[in-house]
Amino acid sequence: MDAVTFGVQLVSVLISLLAFAYAAWLYLWVKRLPSSNARIAHVGRLIREGARTFLRKEYLVLARFALAAGALIFLFLPSPLWSGSVRENVVMTVAYFAGTVFSAIAGKIGIEVATIANIKAAEAAQKGIRPSFMAGFRGGAVMGMAVVGASLIGVTLVYLLTNDASTLLGFSFGASSLALFAKAGGGIFTKTADISADLTGKVELGIPEDDPRNPAVIADNVGDNVGDVAGMGADLFDSNVASMAAALVMASSLDGAMGGSTFVGMVFCYAALGLLASLIGVMCARIGKNGNPTSALNASTYITTGVYVALTALATLVLGYEWRIWGACIVGLLVGVIIGIATDYFTDDTRKPVRHVASASASGPAFTVLSGVSYGFLSVLPAMAGIGISALVAYQLCVPIYPALSTEFAMFGISMAAVGMLSIVGMIVSNDAYGPIVDNARGLAEMGGLGEEVLSVTDQLDSAGNTVKAVTKGFAIAAAGLTVIALLGAFMSEVNTAAAALGVAGLSGFDIMDPLVFFGMLAGAAIPAVFSALLMLGVNRNAQRMVGEIHRQFTTIPGLRQGKAEPEYNRCIDIATTGAIRELIPAGLVAIVATLLVGFVGGVRAIGGFLTGNIVSGLLLALFMSNAGGLWDNAKKYVEAGHEGGRNSAAHKAAVVGDTVGDPFKDTAGPSINTQITVVSLVSSLMSTLFLAGSLFG
Amino acid sequence: MDAVTFGVQLVSVLISLLAFAYAAWLYLWVKRLPSSNARIAHVGRLIREGARTFLRKEYLVLARFALAAGALIFLFLPSPLWSGSVRENVVMTVAYFAGTVFSAIAGKIGIEVATIANIKAAEAAQKGIRPSFMAGFRGGAVMGMAVVGASLIGVTLVYLLTNDASTLLGFSFGASSLALFAKAGGGIFTKTADISADLTGKVELGIPEDDPRNPAVIADNVGDNVGDVAGMGADLFDSNVASMAAALVMASSLDGAMGGSTFVGMVFCYAALGLLASLIGVMCARIGKNGNPTSALNASTYITTGVYVALTALATLVLGYEWRIWGACIVGLLVGVIIGIATDYFTDDTRKPVRHVASASASGPAFTVLSGVSYGFLSVLPAMAGIGISALVAYQLCVPIYPALSTEFAMFGISMAAVGMLSIVGMIVSNDAYGPIVDNARGLAEMGGLGEEVLSVTDQLDSAGNTVKAVTKGFAIAAAGLTVIALLGAFMSEVNTAAAALGVAGLSGFDIMDPLVFFGMLAGAAIPAVFSALLMLGVNRNAQRMVGEIHRQFTTIPGLRQGKAEPEYNRCIDIATTGAIRELIPAGLVAIVATLLVGFVGGVRAIGGFLTGNIVSGLLLALFMSNAGGLWDNAKKYVEAGHEGGRNSAAHKAAVVGDTVGDPFKDTAGPSINTQITVVSLVSSLMSTLFLAGSLFG
Repeated sequence: MDAVTFGVQLVSVLISLLAFAYAAWLYLWVKRLPSSNARIAHVGRLIREGARTFLRKEYLVLARFALAAGALIFLFLPSPLWSGSVRENVVMTVAYFAGTVFSAIAGKIGIEVATIANIKAAEAAQKGIRPSFMAGFRGGAVMGMAVVGASLIGVTLVYLLTNDASTLLGFSFGASSLALFAKAGGGIFTKTADISADLTGKVELGIPEDDPRNPAVIADNVGDNVGDVAGMGADLFDSNVASMAAALVMASSLDGAMGGSTFVGMVFCYAALGLLASLIGVMCARIGKNGNPTSALNASTYITTGVYVALTALATLVLGYEWRIWGACIVGLLVGVIIGIATDYFTDDTRKPVRHVASASASGPAFTVLSGVSYGFLSVLPAMAGIGISALVAYQLCVPIYPALSTEFAMFGISMAAVGMLSIVGMIVSNDAYGPIVDNARGLAEMGGLGEEVLSVTDQLDSAGNTVKAVTKGFAIAAAGLTVIALLGAFMSEVNTAAAALGVAGLSGFDIMDPLVFFGMLAGAAIPAVFSALLMLGVNRNAQRMVGEIHRQFTTIPGLRQGKAEPEYNRCIDIATTGAIRELIPAGLVAIVATLLVGFVGGVRAIGGFLTGNIVSGLLLALFMSNAGGLWDNAKKYVEAGHEGGRNSAAHKAAVVGDTVGDPFKDTAGPSINTQITVVSLVSSLMSTLFLAGSLFG
Repeated sequence: MDAVTFGVQLVSVLISLLAFAYAAWLYLWVKRLPSSNARIAHVGRLIREGARTFLRKEYLVLARFALAAGALIFLFLPSPLWSGSVRENVVMTVAYFAGTVFSAIAGKIGIEVATIANIKAAEAAQKGIRPSFMAGFRGGAVMGMAVVGASLIGVTLVYLLTNDASTLLGFSFGASSLALFAKAGGGIFTKTADISADLTGKVELGIPEDDPRNPAVIADNVGDNVGDVAGMGADLFDSNVASMAAALVMASSLDGAMGGSTFVGMVFCYAALGLLASLIGVMCARIGKNGNPTSALNASTYITTGVYVALTALATLVLGYEWRIWGACIVGLLVGVIIGIATDYFTDDTRKPVRHVASASASGPAFTVLSGVSYGFLSVLPAMAGIGISALVAYQLCVPIYPALSTEFAMFGISMAAVGMLSIVGMIVSNDAYGPIVDNARGLAEMGGLGEEVLSVTDQLDSAGNTVKAVTKGFAIAAAGLTVIALLGAFMSEVNTAAAALGVAGLSGFDIMDPLVFFGMLAGAAIPAVFSALLMLGVNRNAQRMVGEIHRQFTTIPGLRQGKAEPEYNRCIDIATTGAIRELIPAGLVAIVATLLVGFVGGVRAIGGFLTGNIVSGLLLALFMSNAGGLWDNAKKYVEAGHEGGRNSAAHKAAVVGDTVGDPFKDTAGPSINTQITVVSLVSSLMSTLFLAGSLFG
């Protein structure tokens, strides 16, 4: 490895450490904020303990899963133990465990700070919107810095120690395993609690949201943390690692062909500068005394983007990197921002879609659902076209770099577009984690009896969180889409390496007219639908259990209905936790087993088709469900703000139905599809040697 | 052409004529059935006139569209007028018009008999289930025989006259143009009327379904005919012609390479025997005096399948055809039947999905929607896997036929699997058209005051119609899916012919790793979602107009609410008709314009990806929407049969919401996606020379 690249990697490590240091400073800043309200402190503690319980149980189950997966990896990957080198298999297994552990630590840090920041933000809201915003935002930023710092330092260390990009696929698979549990499990948890709390509280008993008499209310607040903080963080940790791993697999093969280590250096350089830019963006986040929190969040994103473009241009100039690859990276970033803005159109309550769904609600819930589904379907177009165009432009930009390796450079260009799109992920996670913190703060302010004025402050902050969440979710899905295209390239590159080692013919591509590819594609396209269906049915079943428990508590605990006795919050948290993990397993297994089945029946060509079908239908369904869910949420809020008859009108009842349908769409199934796609891609890459070695038709 | 193939083609024409003769006999049989009730006759006349009005207007708009499309075809296809032969362009234009006209005639015949058979079935219900069933079934069979007879004779005559399979793509595009108008336009019409009638009648005024005071009631019954009889007939006419056209394009290229005309002969032979088998199946349809109509319909399907297998085996033996190709054909047919049965599982009210959705409805409409969406997602798996497997098996079967042309024979095998799947389409259309006839009969019995006992007979017949409809819809979508895979092969074959003529490089396949292909794939995958969204929003808008009109009639017509005055039924029919055509145009244009855009930007490789993405996401969404819609419909009926609290319970209200959401899913958007896919495939094949000649990136 040349000195420049080694230097770049050291700088990566330094920037990661800087991010951790800044995260620690932010954490202490948040922690030192005053808190005096005993009731809020009590409820806050319940939430923190609930979240810890869930994480502990989840990590325990995950540990068992990871042990089993680790044993299989040790036996079979990168090649069966008896045919390859034991050392390689040990390294791969360790890398896998490291992937799960790094992601788990980032998630744990995020939860710890989020469950303090919510209390602080609630109390700070008494002093106005500015201090409350800062508490929420800086709490979220700890998660942002921790996630990206941990992913960057993890990838860099694994690469420095092994000098082998394929090992990163193991690290990345570790991150994906955790993300599958954290995102899908957290998603089932949060919606189980949310739906049960709403159904029994608001609908049956007519008590307000966040009413402390409701046994599910703490579980609901815990859910925001485990689903939206820990789950979302694990999801983006996973995407970030996967995009770097895919780019590094291709970069190191290019470096092998061209000599030197320039391209590996570029990947680290651009990724590290993304974290630095995010750090600067977070530092710049400010809000005026009566300012608009949405603008503040968006301004930080734009600052980060600008800083990133400038920093990478400077680095490219100084280090003499190839400008075309820089171009691919920037194209990815810009298209990501544009997709975010386009997504915003479909979920913003000043635009036609939300307003139309709100007015359609006046004719009844069927029309809320139909119009929401329609706009959800429409919303997939800009993102799908954007991803396609960015892949096409990145490819065309990088084709001319070196004629003898034009396809390889072009594929590397696509993977760098994914790295570029994910470069500002530190900022994205910060914004995203802000949402559940201020949502929790609203709940705490209500339960602490801080009064209407404080609630209006937290409502404003919460609404900004929802708007930004829709945008970042579109962004995250698009980034995952581009990453998986890069992973498809990484898969082919892995297959060809394995084929060379086995002395069999490799792949030059995947021909759609090849019926093995087509068969794989149709099977792969069905998986995201089946996966989402299993998760949503799981939420349904789990919610039924929790509703039963809530009814039991209201019947058997004397004085509960009058607010004289405290409900057994922990029972609800237990049900949500156990159920989430139980319901998640079949969905995860279906995805993995289907991959193995297709691979051993149709071989690597069928898997190429399988991944393609999976990406195409996964993107379609993830975008549809996330956007439709966000739209229904905001349409309900729009009606509640007094339009179409306001609260308790027929339109409101219909809008609540839309929101309930949208909840598992946008918080359970939609965003989990990302993770499902990544898991399937990584399983395929890791299994490529085995699929090559023996399959029924391939 | 050799004598055997010529003989087979003559037999095709004879079997078509036999089907027409049998249809005429059935028509006269139905027409001669007694009718005496003046009220039924009056309402029946209104329905017939309404359906005729819609068809006339639709055909007028279509004629204008066809004239414009015909002019473009004349100018540009198969090659620009100034660079090719004028004669070829004239032939293509004439073939296009013939495609629209043949399909239109079959639709017109179907509507004419359906709007007589409904009256006869209503009156016959007074004598018991058997005569009523026969009236409904034989009325439907006229449509079945007319659709398949017209498509077979059309394809045969075009081929006999031109001896050029490419011209059939023009004929097929004509059929698709009509299907787009008939299926999507009819779908918007029928759901506009259905939703408006339910919303104002059942919900607002609390009057029963099919109450003659409701101004939308006639439009609703007209809708069944124009959507489910004419629309569905045009859809299957289109699929049938497209599958034959795709197979003949490949067969004639194989015949060119091998000498002779055996493979062309096989296509005609297997298609013609399918019609003969359907004719025998229709003749065998019987029901006992207290028999079960669902079993009677299914039995006819199984008889047709058995007869078809026997007849084709005999023909293969006698004519010395290749058994492997026969195998591909039979695989397609069997998989089609299996997919139909799997679809049935998700919509049958004795199975878990329907029961679960019904019981989830007790928790409110959000749970009806969520569980229905989940099962709808699950239901795509068997069909997607089935299509993939049948393509794979057909390919593997036919690869060994002739080593030098192994891929060509394998692709021909896939196209023959599609022909096999569609071989029993005459039976399928008969069963399918039976549904709206007995549905109408139920309405007429209600409006004619024939009493509860008669209504219970028509209810039984109607329910069988719904069950069978779900099965045939799954079958139709699967057949369309396989057909379009074959059309993708036809597209490549057309491109290569054009490339040879232009002296440029042709295609050997579509590589997923090619970013042009990938870009096209993502764009193509978004189109069915956008297309469905536009149709559903169109239904919403149109229903709002009609609800406005119904409110106006109730306010301005004195005595209407008391049943002393007749509403202005025609106004509602006019609104549904005009609106359907107006709302359909943007959806159709989006699909066609997107194809042209992708083709001229990315060239033929991008189009290959575009078609693939379109097929994958189109199949996914079409299966999801059709099955979820059927499921909700049956869940509502299950609740109405007294389960989960029965009529007017909370579960019933929720189930009605599910049914209303499902209506445009299953009757407008879902099945129209079929047509959208075929239209896009044919536009691509027809434009292949132009896309090759000039595009931005390709």
